[in-house]
Formats: sequence, C-alpha cells, structure tokens
Amino acid sequence: MTATVEARLAQLKIRLPKPAAPVATYVPAVAAGGLLHVSGQLPFTEEGDLMTGRLGEDLGVERGQQAARRSAIMVLAQIKAALGSLDRVERIVKLGVFVSCTPGFTDQPKVANGASDLMVELFGDAGKHARSAVGVPALPLGAAVEIDAIVAIKA
Amino acid sequence: MTATVEARLAQLKIRLPKPAAPVATYVPAVAAGGLLHVSGQLPFTEEGDLMTGRLGEDLGVERGQQAARRSAIMVLAQIKAALGSLDRVERIVKLGVFVSCTPGFTDQPKVANGASDLMVELFGDAGKHARSAVGVPALPLGAAVEIDAIVAIKA
Amino acid sequence: MTATVEARLAQLKIRLPKPAAPVATYVPAVAAGGLLHVSGQLPFTEEGDLMTGRLGEDLGVERGQQAARRSAIMVLAQIKAALGSLDRVERIVKLGVFVSCTPGFTDQPKVANGASDLMVELFGDAGKHARSAVGVPALPLGAAVEIDAIVAIKA
Repeated sequence: MTATVEARLAQLKIRLPKPAAPVATYVPAVAAGGLLHVSGQLPFTEEGDLMTGRLGEDLGVERGQQAARRSAIMVLAQIKAALGSLDRVERIVKLGVFVSCTPGFTDQPKVANGASDLMVELFGDAGKHARSAVGVPALPLGAAVEIDAIVAIKA
Repeated sequence: MTATVEARLAQLKIRLPKPAAPVATYVPAVAAGGLLHVSGQLPFTEEGDLMTGRLGEDLGVERGQQAARRSAIMVLAQIKAALGSLDRVERIVKLGVFVSCTPGFTDQPKVANGASDLMVELFGDAGKHARSAVGVPALPLGAAVEIDAIVAIKA
Repeated sequence: MTATVEARLAQLKIRLPKPAAPVATYVPAVAAGGLLHVSGQLPFTEEGDLMTGRLGEDLGVERGQQAARRSAIMVLAQIKAALGSLDRVERIVKLGVFVSCTPGFTDQPKVANGASDLMVELFGDAGKHARSAVGVPALPLGAAVEIDAIVAIKA
C-alpha cells in the first residue's frame, strides 16, 4: 500500500520534472499545522518550455487542459520535494486554478479539469479536492495557467 | 443554543438550495485539520438560474450584491451538505470573493458585502470572517461572482 | 530572542500604520487551528494615501514593488493588531498577491517580490513563504496591489 501513489505515477508514465526554483525570496511550499501550502505553479512541458498564451484568444480548451495538467505535475513535483514522497499525501485539499483568458471566455472549469482529473487518476479518493477556478487577464511570464494547492500531510 | 443557526436561517426565510454538483472530478468541500475548504460557488437564483453578467458593464452594484449573497447561500448549502448542520460551524474563517468586472470597476468591497453581511446576520460573531475581494475578467459560465470559503469546524 | 522581530522592524525604520478598518462586516484577521488568516490588504503610503494605478499602463515595476511592500506592511500591522506582537509569528505560510495590470503585463513576480523580500528581511527563515502572484483587471478603490496572508502562530 505505501508505495501505491509513486507506483501509479510510473504506471501513468508521468515523469516529475525538476521542481521549479522560485526566483525570489519565497519558497515552493510551506508546511504548517498538518497542511502543506504549495506556491502557484506554472505549466512547463516535458522539454521544460513554459506554456504561454490566453484562452479565448490564441489557445483552445484542449490546450488549456494540457497546461492545467502540466501545472498540476509541477505541483506534484513540489509536493514530492517538500515531503520526500507523494505517499505522504493524506489528501489533496484545495486547488486554486487561475486561467489566463479574454473577458469572453467562460470555460475555466473545463480547463481546470486537466489538473483535477490528474489528481484523482493518481490519488483516487484522496485526490478529490475542493477547487476554485477563475479567469485572469495576465499571469507571470505570460503563462496560460497558474495553480496553487493545499495538501493534508499524513501524520 | 444548538439549533440557533438553523433556526435563524428559517427566521431569515432563507431556503438553502440543493447544493450544486461539481461537473468534474473535484468535490464541493474537503475537511482537513479542523478546517472545511469549500469550492468556489456560483450565484444561482431561488429558481435555479445562474446570475450572469459583469459589474461596470451590464450589472449594477446592487445586483452584484444580490449575486454575492446568492453565492454565499450556495456556500452555506455546501457547508450543510458536508457537516450535516450549520450548527457545526465554529467560525467562518475566510471568504475569497471574485467579482466579474470591467477594468474600470472598483467597488468590489460593496459587492462582496452581499456575502459578508449574510454570514454575520446568520452566525453573529462566528460569522465575522477575513476576506479578499478582487476583480476578474471572466468567471465560469459567465457568472457575476464566485466565492470560496474556509470554515472552522466545531470539535 | 523574543523581541527580535519587533526590534528588527525598528532597525528597518518601518513604522507600522494604524491597521486599516474594514468598512464592512468582515474583519481584518481570524485565527483558527493555529493559523491566522489575514484579509486582503491594500497599499497605503506612510502619509495614508492609497497607491492606485495599473501595471503596464500608468505604473512601472518599481512603483508596483513599492505598492506590494506597502500592502505587506499593512499585513504586518494587521498581524500585530491580532496577535499583540509580531514575535508571536511562527511562520509566514502563504501570501496571495493580486496585481492590477493590463493583459500584456507579465512581471507579477517582480512586483510581488516587494512584499516577499520584506517578509524575509524581517523574519529571516520564518519569513520564507509560499506564494501565488496573479494579474487582475481591477482592485478595490483602484488599488495597484492587494495581498492576503496565512500565518502560523507560535503555540
């Protein structure tokens, strides 16, 4: 049982990237009171390229979902770096999903599903999280999606 | 004492709607470490219609306040569904209020008061919460307001 | 040791302002489960004037950083008002940084550093926090930046 999540990660053929280093005085994750708060993560491809663009303008929903999935994979990389193993995750508690989009774009939930679906594929019931998904006009470095997270840590 | 909040809800003639089902792999609320994290809730009328539009464009402040109040009522419905009773609320800790608006609209606090006032009407001091209120260009399905919440649960 | 942070505040010649009073039924900060949730704070100058404007339009990055620093100073004022002393801070856990900007502005991290750097100057390692930084089209009263926070309280 203890190796389940790490094993499922391999089954899903997901290779966790080197966790992105913050360029500033903040840190990728902080644990307090049994909860790990993970900083907003941007979507990088397997090749390490940032996925940029704006939904409703130069990106379609499917590409947005891929960006959300890649942001979620970076969230996972930060959790693993902070806790040592994804098997120490008790529950994915909350995802905050910010979608770069035009004022006319209203499919933020579909985009965010790219991240939510991955969490449930990987953690099962423990991956079922609360979520907010909102549109924003601009994200760091022109990223398409930014996702932060709150995670309950096993005692 | 134990039935106070539920009784006050009736006094205020607020009928909690059927809690909205997420259309995806996330869930409406997750409890961890004594805190309930409630997913972002959209404003539905008593008739079940989504309140859409943008402040500063096709919605005035008063209508925005009504939307915030209706989002807050959906937050309450989710809390009740998760905890069984609103009387298990120790404290409304934090509301995150996202207001769909034009770049020229700066009355997000007045809009958000539609939610904040309701929490205090209903819970008294236990309803006094921390809050952030920001403008966004677009919300899911064209909603006017989205509100997420953190709630402390009675031991 | 116990007076370190308050002493460093004096060394840095930072005078905490009178904490801003919410104009509504919410409160500046709520403690629950060992965590203090601080409401979104706006940037006020030492003279008490709100710093307004939009990055990418009428504000440059440096001015945005100053606004982020002033919002962070108001966060500190609220923490002190809530806890009695900044020396009761165990850890700055998370900052949520909302930057008012045009769709073309992508330097939200640089702006947010104005807040992050201050926390580390003041608290050292205990000031290293998780962070999300996103752009928004509009903030309350036309503010340039809004910052909310989660803080772990010493037992």
